[in-house]
Amino acid sequence: MSIAFVILAAGQGTRMNSDLPKVLHQIGGAPMLVHAIRAAEFQDPSRIVVVTGHGGEAVGKAALDYQPMVDIAEQGEQLGTAHAVAQARSALEGFEGDVIVLYGDTPFVQTETLEKMREARAAHDVVVLGFEAADPGRYGRLVMDGKNLERIVEFKDATEEERRITLCNSGVIAANAQVLFDLIDAVGNDNASGEYYLTDIIGLARGRGLSAGAVTCDEAETLGVNSRAELSAAEALFQARRRTEALEDGVTLIAPDTVHFAFDTVIGRDSVVEPNVVFGPGASVESGVTVRPFSHLEGCHVSRGSVVGPYARLRPGAELAEDVKIGNFVEIKASRVDRGAKINHLTYVGDAEVGEEANLGAGTVTCNYDGVMKHQTRIGARAFIGSSTMLVAPVSIGDDAMTGSGSVITQDVEPGALAIGRAKQVTKPGLARKLFEMLKAQKAKKQQGAE
Amino acid sequence: MSIAFVILAAGQGTRMNSDLPKVLHQIGGAPMLVHAIRAAEFQDPSRIVVVTGHGGEAVGKAALDYQPMVDIAEQGEQLGTAHAVAQARSALEGFEGDVIVLYGDTPFVQTETLEKMREARAAHDVVVLGFEAADPGRYGRLVMDGKNLERIVEFKDATEEERRITLCNSGVIAANAQVLFDLIDAVGNDNASGEYYLTDIIGLARGRGLSAGAVTCDEAETLGVNSRAELSAAEALFQARRRTEALEDGVTLIAPDTVHFAFDTVIGRDSVVEPNVVFGPGASVESGVTVRPFSHLEGCHVSRGSVVGPYARLRPGAELAEDVKIGNFVEIKASRVDRGAKINHLTYVGDAEVGEEANLGAGTVTCNYDGVMKHQTRIGARAFIGSSTMLVAPVSIGDDAMTGSGSVITQDVEPGALAIGRAKQVTKPGLARKLFEMLKAQKAKKQQGAE
Amino acid sequence: MSIAFVILAAGQGTRMNSDLPKVLHQIGGAPMLVHAIRAAEFQDPSRIVVVTGHGGEAVGKAALDYQPMVDIAEQGEQLGTAHAVAQARSALEGFEGDVIVLYGDTPFVQTETLEKMREARAAHDVVVLGFEAADPGRYGRLVMDGKNLERIVEFKDATEEERRITLCNSGVIAANAQVLFDLIDAVGNDNASGEYYLTDIIGLARGRGLSAGAVTCDEAETLGVNSRAELSAAEALFQARRRTEALEDGVTLIAPDTVHFAFDTVIGRDSVVEPNVVFGPGASVESGVTVRPFSHLEGCHVSRGSVVGPYARLRPGAELAEDVKIGNFVEIKASRVDRGAKINHLTYVGDAEVGEEANLGAGTVTCNYDGVMKHQTRIGARAFIGSSTMLVAPVSIGDDAMTGSGSVITQDVEPGALAIGRAKQVTKPGLARKLFEMLKAQKAKKQQGAE
Repeated sequence: MSIAFVILAAGQGTRMNSDLPKVLHQIGGAPMLVHAIRAAEFQDPSRIVVVTGHGGEAVGKAALDYQPMVDIAEQGEQLGTAHAVAQARSALEGFEGDVIVLYGDTPFVQTETLEKMREARAAHDVVVLGFEAADPGRYGRLVMDGKNLERIVEFKDATEEERRITLCNSGVIAANAQVLFDLIDAVGNDNASGEYYLTDIIGLARGRGLSAGAVTCDEAETLGVNSRAELSAAEALFQARRRTEALEDGVTLIAPDTVHFAFDTVIGRDSVVEPNVVFGPGASVESGVTVRPFSHLEGCHVSRGSVVGPYARLRPGAELAEDVKIGNFVEIKASRVDRGAKINHLTYVGDAEVGEEANLGAGTVTCNYDGVMKHQTRIGARAFIGSSTMLVAPVSIGDDAMTGSGSVITQDVEPGALAIGRAKQVTKPGLARKLFEMLKAQKAKKQQGAE
Repeated sequence: MSIAFVILAAGQGTRMNSDLPKVLHQIGGAPMLVHAIRAAEFQDPSRIVVVTGHGGEAVGKAALDYQPMVDIAEQGEQLGTAHAVAQARSALEGFEGDVIVLYGDTPFVQTETLEKMREARAAHDVVVLGFEAADPGRYGRLVMDGKNLERIVEFKDATEEERRITLCNSGVIAANAQVLFDLIDAVGNDNASGEYYLTDIIGLARGRGLSAGAVTCDEAETLGVNSRAELSAAEALFQARRRTEALEDGVTLIAPDTVHFAFDTVIGRDSVVEPNVVFGPGASVESGVTVRPFSHLEGCHVSRGSVVGPYARLRPGAELAEDVKIGNFVEIKASRVDRGAKINHLTYVGDAEVGEEANLGAGTVTCNYDGVMKHQTRIGARAFIGSSTMLVAPVSIGDDAMTGSGSVITQDVEPGALAIGRAKQVTKPGLARKLFEMLKAQKAKKQQGAE
Repeated sequence: MSIAFVILAAGQGTRMNSDLPKVLHQIGGAPMLVHAIRAAEFQDPSRIVVVTGHGGEAVGKAALDYQPMVDIAEQGEQLGTAHAVAQARSALEGFEGDVIVLYGDTPFVQTETLEKMREARAAHDVVVLGFEAADPGRYGRLVMDGKNLERIVEFKDATEEERRITLCNSGVIAANAQVLFDLIDAVGNDNASGEYYLTDIIGLARGRGLSAGAVTCDEAETLGVNSRAELSAAEALFQARRRTEALEDGVTLIAPDTVHFAFDTVIGRDSVVEPNVVFGPGASVESGVTVRPFSHLEGCHVSRGSVVGPYARLRPGAELAEDVKIGNFVEIKASRVDRGAKINHLTYVGDAEVGEEANLGAGTVTCNYDGVMKHQTRIGARAFIGSSTMLVAPVSIGDDAMTGSGSVITQDVEPGALAIGRAKQVTKPGLARKLFEMLKAQKAKKQQGAE
């Protein structure tokens, strides 16, 4: 059965105390909305419709930045969840399969759970996702009749007996597109809030002789985020899961609680991640890599056998081949570093290619920006770049070439050549002593003057 | 009613296993004593008297460094809490309002609690601060008679019935100054320790027909620190509170447990603090700022829209205007950085002014110290400082000026000018290859010699 | 009674999901095997035999790297624990004292526990280490008869009544060498797994009229590691212990949970370790030192009164004398830094000696590597090294000498002399403005071309 998703992302999130729309607050370096889109993507859907409202422009942009195939449906006024889903109707024009409704602030629904919902559709016209709540509190309750879902009752409308039910409503619903929109058409707003509730479709379905059922999942999967405290709790839950997965995948995390993952971090077996490492989005690390403390990796790839850090920063576009060594206080951006190259200390490499087994001394800088444009640097295989060499891009250093420490290199250096730009050392006997005395005398005079 | 505070800070703190007087051990980057002084300050008091004893000189200095208006009273011998309070008498000469006694090792008493004590003085001559203890253990018990405090009984003197009381004594006491000192005069030391106990004044007050009452607070507020383990638990409690407050204030803390606050840290709404950030004393951050991982900020101000880090260190006197960008491995000290300026990599800026939209290349250093004195650097608006430029202070770079990378700038550069100090690049074909061969031959020879 | 140890280290550790042999996974920066060897070493043993199997070569090398006096016994096939111990027989040829069997994946057995086992040997021929299990689960049970250990029963062979026993078997066993090997000779493999179990020697001993007894320890001491999750739990336990010890020793840990210790870290009283500090192996820090955030120390010594960090990296061979100051983004390797020297910013010092009260400016680099060999740098007392000075080793800067910032120093500088190597600053009025305009025009042209 083909599948489409409607993701509700119109809420304001007042309790977040933020100008940023709620669904754009991040977990694991990605907006919560992106987590919901990804959950949908794993089902290989025909369409994904994101319904936007508060901060709609920013929300729509974030959705399209991540996945350009998404459709955006605007909800002009926020008149309830049924009304929100109704906005997706035209984007789903002509689609005849099933629709699942997800939420942009519920980032943890698992692939297997969605699969269970799709399978459950064989037995029921409408399928709701429920969960056994440890503390059901004010959640809506799923009133079951054997395997059939009789109705969803809101807490405030529930009898004492119904309030003792612990199976609660997550809000996630699956149904055939045609059926879903027909039922939504029938939803009214004759209630205290004057809103159109999606949950009302269960009662309507039953009234039409359709069957409804429930699929259950862990309460944690349905965790919604309404405040920054809940957001940081959700982040902590996400991190705990990713750390456990990494350990199971054969990654050594010496102090798992000090390693922060992004939603898409990949780390190979028998790689070692030492304490205090942060992965931003887009980092992949192969097997047998060591990431030392206080390193920060994002948008980069690190190949087998490389050692990174401590205090290494790999920025987007850093591509390290095998057995590369990136040391302390080194920043690599938009650069490829070939097998066995060493960049050990206090260096900035941006917009560059570094050849096999090249060695860059401490304080090397690829001067990639002239104040207006960025330029490329090429360093050849086995080149030896002396400490504090300024490589003024665009510039190319040939294979097996060498630069003298403290040189400013503005012209290409051919393979095997030595380039140097350095003033001759002049040593003036006794002058340091005289200077110190003079400076001390000046200081004393100044202090006298100040008295 | 005007108010004064007596803060007892004479204890040795043997269990701290430290040469530092106990009240100078820090929480949130400030000595515990300073937390107590701050609690007093929020009441807008007429006087604050700190009673010192062990390590008195250092304790007095710390108090005066923080708040020069404080009076210091020395307690020559430690003969008990009543004796300690008595030392404050001459500093309170002529003061006719109320006195509250606080403790230098009890840093968490809240403003509202002190206000409740002041209000309770309307009903009682002496007011004691108590707390409901989860585990009353060996605390002194408050024996109440309705709303009146009958007496304070020490655990060792308590009957079985009294030991079942869970309302315990914090030691904090409020009374009129004249009354307090009169009662203290009557306190004796006829007990096992031979000490003069402040708690005895309750019984003495009742004996004179005065009324005593109790105000209660959370047990956590009265937390005292007697060992380093307790100190680190108190620090953890302080941090947990500050993190919760920041979240409520609309700050995004991605991993709250990895952000360390100082006692006076200020962060604006919708600022994002990424994992592993440390705030030392005196840091204030406006709204909409991003502080990236592994950053360290103290004594600095960061304005709206700026991005700091990763690995940025802002030291005292760093003042960032709006939309400034401070990148990795950059240290800023005693410098103003104007709107939109960028200092992205491996740079030291000290004792400087950096103009609007100036751009400092990687490896820039303001050479502010000549070995004897510090000097100022001025960088103009839109100036472009080439990588690894040494700015030998005092020196001034004009607006729209430029320096060549690798230059040592010792003379002022006028607006719009280009300054450069650079040896010409000389390239010697084939010389690198020859040098490598020569060095390898030398190494081989050395190794042979070593065998 | 002289003592020898047999450490079983042949297991594969399939559940670790790793190519590294299980006993080489680390806790506190040392392989688990090394922790077991260290536990043995504290008993001043005559011999230590490590029995290797899976990954035997690497395991043997790790053992010998740490302690060259260890004997390695290879277990060709893994036929059970009794068979493993039997492999140690020839290495213990002629030894007549007691043997204790330890495990390479059980790193937490305490010195006092081993001493209790040795003492218990006075009363019993064979002594087993047991523990009261919170959840005995499938552990083997120690069946006691008063003070005598009757037998060890495996969970699967235990009666209902025996399964209610909570005293469990750790596997650690002590006996006279001759007795141990005689008993092992009698162990059979007539069981479901076809393995020779060391635990069978208890029954055999009793059958021969020998006495067996049990010594008990905390369950945590016998913690074994079988998965990466268990490894990280063991690491967390190790860190928690070390943090508590440090606090008791009078070290200030502001945020103990963010400080990572190695197995051999030493820190003196009244030293302060701020948040986010990592100690690798071999670091010792004297009293009264401050280690600021984001510092990384390994194989180094820091003397009284020094201040290190934030963002300081001390690598093996860094030796700091008293009152040294190492600041941010500074790396020190294989170098001695004398009393009062200051290295405050963005500096690499490798293979060097830095004299008393020398001051190294930001961006200083000891260029210790010529691409083939490492060389030494000597900086004299009170020398002032200007910012971004390149010290091309081998080179020596005399006492009281000075180098100009931005100089490349290739020749020795005599005491009191000033050395400088710097191109003259040339300033070209208006040229920066022209260059910016030209570059912007080029950019615009390029962009037009791209359209």
